[in-house]
Amino acid sequence: MIFTIAQTQLNLGALGKNFSRLIEIWDEHDGKSDLIIFPELALAGYPLEDLVENPNFLKACDETLGELLKESCNRKSAIVLTHPIKENKKIYNALLLIESGKVVAKIYKSYLPNYGVFDEKRNFSRGRNNNVVEWRGKKIGFLICEDIWRDEILDKLSAQGAEIFISLNASPYDAHKAKRRTTLAKRIVKRYKLPLIYVNLYGAQDELVFDGGSFVMDLDGEYIVPPVFWQEMIINNDLKRSSLIAEVEEATSSSIYNALVLGLRSYILNNGFKKAIIAISGGIDSAFVAMLAADAIGRENLILVKMPSKYSSDHSVLDADDLAKNLGVKPITIPIQKSVDVALTELLPHFAGKPADVTEENLQSRIRGVMLMALSNKSGAILLSTGNKSEYACGYATIYGDMCGGFAPIKDVYKTQIYELCRYRNNNIPKLSCFMGLNVIPENSITKPPSAELSYGQLDVDTLPEYSILDKILHELIEHNQDLESIVKMGYNRELIIKICKMLKISEYKRKQAPLGTKISIKNLSKDRRCPVTNQFEIV
Amino acid sequence: MIFTIAQTQLNLGALGKNFSRLIEIWDEHDGKSDLIIFPELALAGYPLEDLVENPNFLKACDETLGELLKESCNRKSAIVLTHPIKENKKIYNALLLIESGKVVAKIYKSYLPNYGVFDEKRNFSRGRNNNVVEWRGKKIGFLICEDIWRDEILDKLSAQGAEIFISLNASPYDAHKAKRRTTLAKRIVKRYKLPLIYVNLYGAQDELVFDGGSFVMDLDGEYIVPPVFWQEMIINNDLKRSSLIAEVEEATSSSIYNALVLGLRSYILNNGFKKAIIAISGGIDSAFVAMLAADAIGRENLILVKMPSKYSSDHSVLDADDLAKNLGVKPITIPIQKSVDVALTELLPHFAGKPADVTEENLQSRIRGVMLMALSNKSGAILLSTGNKSEYACGYATIYGDMCGGFAPIKDVYKTQIYELCRYRNNNIPKLSCFMGLNVIPENSITKPPSAELSYGQLDVDTLPEYSILDKILHELIEHNQDLESIVKMGYNRELIIKICKMLKISEYKRKQAPLGTKISIKNLSKDRRCPVTNQFEIV
Repeated sequence: MIFTIAQTQLNLGALGKNFSRLIEIWDEHDGKSDLIIFPELALAGYPLEDLVENPNFLKACDETLGELLKESCNRKSAIVLTHPIKENKKIYNALLLIESGKVVAKIYKSYLPNYGVFDEKRNFSRGRNNNVVEWRGKKIGFLICEDIWRDEILDKLSAQGAEIFISLNASPYDAHKAKRRTTLAKRIVKRYKLPLIYVNLYGAQDELVFDGGSFVMDLDGEYIVPPVFWQEMIINNDLKRSSLIAEVEEATSSSIYNALVLGLRSYILNNGFKKAIIAISGGIDSAFVAMLAADAIGRENLILVKMPSKYSSDHSVLDADDLAKNLGVKPITIPIQKSVDVALTELLPHFAGKPADVTEENLQSRIRGVMLMALSNKSGAILLSTGNKSEYACGYATIYGDMCGGFAPIKDVYKTQIYELCRYRNNNIPKLSCFMGLNVIPENSITKPPSAELSYGQLDVDTLPEYSILDKILHELIEHNQDLESIVKMGYNRELIIKICKMLKISEYKRKQAPLGTKISIKNLSKDRRCPVTNQFEIV
Repeated sequence: MIFTIAQTQLNLGALGKNFSRLIEIWDEHDGKSDLIIFPELALAGYPLEDLVENPNFLKACDETLGELLKESCNRKSAIVLTHPIKENKKIYNALLLIESGKVVAKIYKSYLPNYGVFDEKRNFSRGRNNNVVEWRGKKIGFLICEDIWRDEILDKLSAQGAEIFISLNASPYDAHKAKRRTTLAKRIVKRYKLPLIYVNLYGAQDELVFDGGSFVMDLDGEYIVPPVFWQEMIINNDLKRSSLIAEVEEATSSSIYNALVLGLRSYILNNGFKKAIIAISGGIDSAFVAMLAADAIGRENLILVKMPSKYSSDHSVLDADDLAKNLGVKPITIPIQKSVDVALTELLPHFAGKPADVTEENLQSRIRGVMLMALSNKSGAILLSTGNKSEYACGYATIYGDMCGGFAPIKDVYKTQIYELCRYRNNNIPKLSCFMGLNVIPENSITKPPSAELSYGQLDVDTLPEYSILDKILHELIEHNQDLESIVKMGYNRELIIKICKMLKISEYKRKQAPLGTKISIKNLSKDRRCPVTNQFEIV
């Protein structure tokens, strides 16, 4: 039996486009393959969230499925995909095996993930008919995404005599997911002594990235078809060892970088934008975002904006110029000092003689936001926000200022990771890059001490702990959900940890108003971590 | 047997404060009552969201429960509440009957709501030990919030010989909830021929309001203790008919108004603010928000700001002055025209000769945002955003402009409802008001055609349909989740409905960056409705 692994890019809600892509693949492989396997919710997109409850959408889903059934009449190969199906007022994520105008098998997704970024129990009803499907003389154990992580289901399918596991997925990326996936797959094939075909989506949707990485694995845990990341892969396989060579395991920096490019590119293009605006300050964050954007949509589509104030240092202006030169983009300059001064003059009578404080700093950042959003409105280009995860976690970003933007590409990237990624990118051209230059990010942006430059001589360390320590503590608090005592035992200062806990808490309201940004960690600050704003819990 | 219904105000995360309040009530009723019944998650707060997974918080919850057990040693009355309990790596919402230093009954919440605003399946594990508790010679059927809506549980408790149902709740308000609750209660007492004690929380948390409305109902569906809304109610009852007289059913306007006041007041005060800033334009929305804020925190805590531009009409300025006068607040004026002009001058070279469009309109709105946020930063007062549900739904609000704010009090109120509520408030002083004036909102703000006044002679109807039609269609799309054809059949124009569907879709990204605001409808635009931003589904 020959299977087609269809690791393809599909978009949420794009029923017509997705339908055409499925037909294209089907046509190309019709007759050469028994079964074409598509990722989870191939036609409708993933994750649908409450769109799946929209009656107009459900009706369109039904109609598109009807078209697909019609198409299957004239084709020899069968296909398998999952699709939202409403029956008796319940909506299921149903796997459909389609052949010759008929649904020859229908299995409802059984385990609906409802943790992390997932809300599937909200949107779907649970099925319980996950039985082996006997088809063309083969007993197939189909698995829909989360189901593969559950021994209960694997046991049942194995007990029913499954000869192969086929898993359809839309499995969101994080920097460690590919490794966890491989470990799981090896355990499964060895334990059940069955081969496994794992098909995953490639692409991105809002904050989620899908890295592909589909594979076929033999019972001994060796790849028959090794995983390929960051591209489409449509390949036929008969479960015999192929001549494909497994990619060397991707380095973390390369993997994260590609994820950030894919997330950014998909958000921009799939929301109908062509160009992006980035305010370049000479600092590392904005330099990195500009680099990512050049890699995502091409330098010719960047609008780089310099907005110096009286606090901008000479080196900042020079570093921003260097970056623009390295990218081959002529930046535009919009001075903000006059606007800041006029606004402050109007405000002064109402400041009750109070001394300068964070107000004046935020004002500059917000005037920049006003200018950038005006450019965005006038040009139709999307503004990218340059805040990183360390800042978002501590509230060290100005709401309606540098937090302005349609997308925040590095929102889930800690400051220390940004340094690593800049060094990586200066020396490498990642797979997904559409800009071929090296050493774009000025060395000085990488080596100088970070500063928001909203007052004279200001440095991030005046307000925040050193990033090397801050990021480690944040990582323990956020990603590892560690308690205070455990982090103290790791050797960190108790008062410092408590201070960081408090910063995390009081900045919750800002994050509720933040742009979306690509998830790369096991726990981002958006859907992965849903905390109340009003919260009177005091850690000490 | 005497029961104490403890409808009290408790705050999320405020373990110490909540503990003190519980002890206060306990002391007052100790010996006079057998059992003091507190609302759901009385000590910890509701809804905890992911805070319940915070190990420091869980530890503090354990400790506070330990203190409560100690306190119970010296008291004659028992208490019942629910509390987060972690056992074998699972977190349960557990009902605890506490008496003489011991937990004499422990029941895990069985049905975990995971629709609408709820995410309980994310945060809690399901229990299955919901059995009748025999205590002091009485068989009690305890119900934790959602459990009361499930026949399966009621049947089981009834079959086990329950002599009374006692339900502990944190049931979020919407304008129709009280009626649904009463209908349900009547059905239950009659069907099972058992009395029902229903205890609900009073207060607010982020977007949710809890209206109280606790009651005791006899088997014939008559109130023994009638519900009291919008206040604390601590009352002893022996299940015999009391002399209390049921409140006349509250009118919708009064109920919604109180909900808005409670939501706003709680958000402001529980987040540590004392004063609020409202930009008053002379329009109805800002007038209504100012009125609400005066009712929530007192007019002496308002900072009213006028920010005229060259497009502001004379009547707007006068209407804003009238409002301020009626409230007895001296407004401050911050002109924006100079700031707008300077910003536009700096931007002009980059506008590529393009004609004026929405860019210039948004710029004014955003300069106002900059001024208001500066005032907020300098004064420590919270800025209130004045956008309504009709605007948020259609994207007819400027992101980083009039959407700026720590809270959006009328975010879930349609424009047509605002007219009703203004008329209501001009003629009535609601229960929760702390401002005693009538006729505060100028008649002209109510009767003149709505305008954002961002260009000469601009009216809302230039961009949006008439609100009387728009709101009805939005209501069908959002609250009723109706499909296109059904709404067409109601007599609305197909093209108009499609246009509104498209506006709803393309403004999704704005709502993701909106402030929180009090929920009053059955479906708000925040947690009740979670839609993807990137969404290529086209309704036609």
